[in-house]
Amino acid sequence: MKISISGLYQTQFGELWDQSLEDLISKAANGCLKDSGITISQVQSVFIGNMLGGVNENKQHLSSLVSQLLKTQVPVTRVESACASGGMALRLAIQAINSGDIDNALVVGAEKMTDLSACDISKALMGAASAEERTADLTFPGLYALLARAYFHQFQASERDLAKVAVKNHFHATFNPKAQFRFPITADQVLSSTKVADPLKLLDCSPITDGAAAIFIATPKWLKAHHLKNSVYISGSAQAQDSLSLSHRTSLTSLSATKLAAHKAYAQAGITPKDIDLVEVHDCFTIAEILALEDLDIYPKGEAYAHINKKESYLGGKKPVNTSGGLKACGHPVAATGIKQVIEATLQLRQQAGNRQVKAPKVAVTQNIGGTGGTAIVHVLIR
Amino acid sequence: MKISISGLYQTQFGELWDQSLEDLISKAANGCLKDSGITISQVQSVFIGNMLGGVNENKQHLSSLVSQLLKTQVPVTRVESACASGGMALRLAIQAINSGDIDNALVVGAEKMTDLSACDISKALMGAASAEERTADLTFPGLYALLARAYFHQFQASERDLAKVAVKNHFHATFNPKAQFRFPITADQVLSSTKVADPLKLLDCSPITDGAAAIFIATPKWLKAHHLKNSVYISGSAQAQDSLSLSHRTSLTSLSATKLAAHKAYAQAGITPKDIDLVEVHDCFTIAEILALEDLDIYPKGEAYAHINKKESYLGGKKPVNTSGGLKACGHPVAATGIKQVIEATLQLRQQAGNRQVKAPKVAVTQNIGGTGGTAIVHVLIR
Repeated sequence: MKISISGLYQTQFGELWDQSLEDLISKAANGCLKDSGITISQVQSVFIGNMLGGVNENKQHLSSLVSQLLKTQVPVTRVESACASGGMALRLAIQAINSGDIDNALVVGAEKMTDLSACDISKALMGAASAEERTADLTFPGLYALLARAYFHQFQASERDLAKVAVKNHFHATFNPKAQFRFPITADQVLSSTKVADPLKLLDCSPITDGAAAIFIATPKWLKAHHLKNSVYISGSAQAQDSLSLSHRTSLTSLSATKLAAHKAYAQAGITPKDIDLVEVHDCFTIAEILALEDLDIYPKGEAYAHINKKESYLGGKKPVNTSGGLKACGHPVAATGIKQVIEATLQLRQQAGNRQVKAPKVAVTQNIGGTGGTAIVHVLIR
Repeated sequence: MKISISGLYQTQFGELWDQSLEDLISKAANGCLKDSGITISQVQSVFIGNMLGGVNENKQHLSSLVSQLLKTQVPVTRVESACASGGMALRLAIQAINSGDIDNALVVGAEKMTDLSACDISKALMGAASAEERTADLTFPGLYALLARAYFHQFQASERDLAKVAVKNHFHATFNPKAQFRFPITADQVLSSTKVADPLKLLDCSPITDGAAAIFIATPKWLKAHHLKNSVYISGSAQAQDSLSLSHRTSLTSLSATKLAAHKAYAQAGITPKDIDLVEVHDCFTIAEILALEDLDIYPKGEAYAHINKKESYLGGKKPVNTSGGLKACGHPVAATGIKQVIEATLQLRQQAGNRQVKAPKVAVTQNIGGTGGTAIVHVLIR
């Protein structure tokens, strides 16, 4: 498998009161076409990830909506897998190209979240959890608080260790003009912010965000024939599942879907965790970044937080994590996140990441999960 | 492309008050595994089509729900494309196999519809239409009534011609134990039934239905190696889109997405419309069956209704249409429909369709659409 990432575009992430779901999709798709140097008539297939259009605004059948917005009749496929919808859309697009059916695909992830009240959007997001978790009036901060408590119980980490993840990601976001929160915070600010679900505080949580992101992928052969950008390759793409309910899991300090997907993606790409120069992981809550780094085998179980303390995962460190600002500070427009992670990795590998550039990276990994890890998608990108 | 259909299972279609979405998915999936003669541990990937779980019950993230229900961690992908969700799930599963990633896939379509009031389910279904159509308080009967009016205007067809589609499909359903309506009706009964959206009457409309359907597909090589059923092949699988709004279309008497998908699927399979022995088409409303037969090039534009009059599309006729009873009488659990159509075609090709068996068919075509034809998926099956 060798698929190239040619064009990319990310809208501003934030509270975009004046933009609808349709606006965001159009902006990301057209921005990506322009960046790719192609027109819609050259696109052979479109994949769109979106979670909440149906529940929030009764906007379903996005395959047809996108056809109308972009004026194309090629196959458009909408996939949903909660917060992993973007990564899943990309994985399916890669499979479609590898099937030989098509040479290229436009992949879009988009989410409009801020038109709902805080209560309604929290309820809508619980569609990614199990019926028993909804009945118990759990929220996602509540579910991840359970994971954090289990981690604290098993290892020596503290609330301050979690806070440091948020501090790092806010620091990174100060260099990302597309980020929702472009200001630094301190660990003390995190620790003194409002408690949401003990031990998680407001500043341990990723925000509610509007935004979209799109990439154009193709076979290297097709890109060469059309004289288009062709420098970053997706050489691993894997997906795994786990139960919807935390109560069905054997461990609360490891997300086995991430482990399974990572092992498969690394094998496809022929890499080991040591080869990875940077990662974008799914830090919907600070504890999630720590679990991700361990489940991706970047650090042994129970040790990732100590390395954040040592600043290894900072820009300039040994293994930068979430240089985009992560979900925490770049923002988390659910289905756009999986695509945004790949965009950040691509910009880094192309050395186009501006003043958040990692020094000459060759291998980047993205990890995108749904719910509490019921879905995990891992991609390996190589320059 | 040559993919075999090995196992299949359809639940009863109807008002299944005692069965949840989870029950329907489990029943169809496990029934299909049993029919295939395999266990879940042999399944390498699962695709699930579902439209309404999110809007109706806030059940999203079905990839993880299915993982929990079936106790598997292989990739599970949920797709949605309104009433074409089932066909789209199948098409993606075929692409995934053709990519070389996997040898087999379990494909499930499921929908739970009857727990909502008539008003709420109509509103939920309008998620498949455009915002302007929703704002105009249109319903799907209303939208298809516009198509019927345009057809009447352009050709010589009448309300009685539409009625005959319903009469035929109810007749076929009397032979299908899985059908929702297993009783015959007359054209006069259709014509005198309650007007829903002029010229469509209650008996021109497919019903609200609970149900699920599943098939197990694989490469012939994998099936041979495992000594499994291997007699019906999918040799064409294509998809096309059209605008969400009817107001953006150039024609109201032809669904161009069906035409595009059909041409591509026929070319893949190396067939012409003359080779087709039977078809299962998307008769969500009686007018839709007429449009489908013309857009599939089985009859010239403006002529399909006359052939129904001549009973050609009846069991025993030259080209039987919707031997399952169609959406009209077998029922229309939205995302299950695309899979049910393929199951009916497979049973016919295997000559296992009981007392609705078509004589020794070799080529069958299924056509599954979303909304008013914003998505169309066409499959060609060959024995």
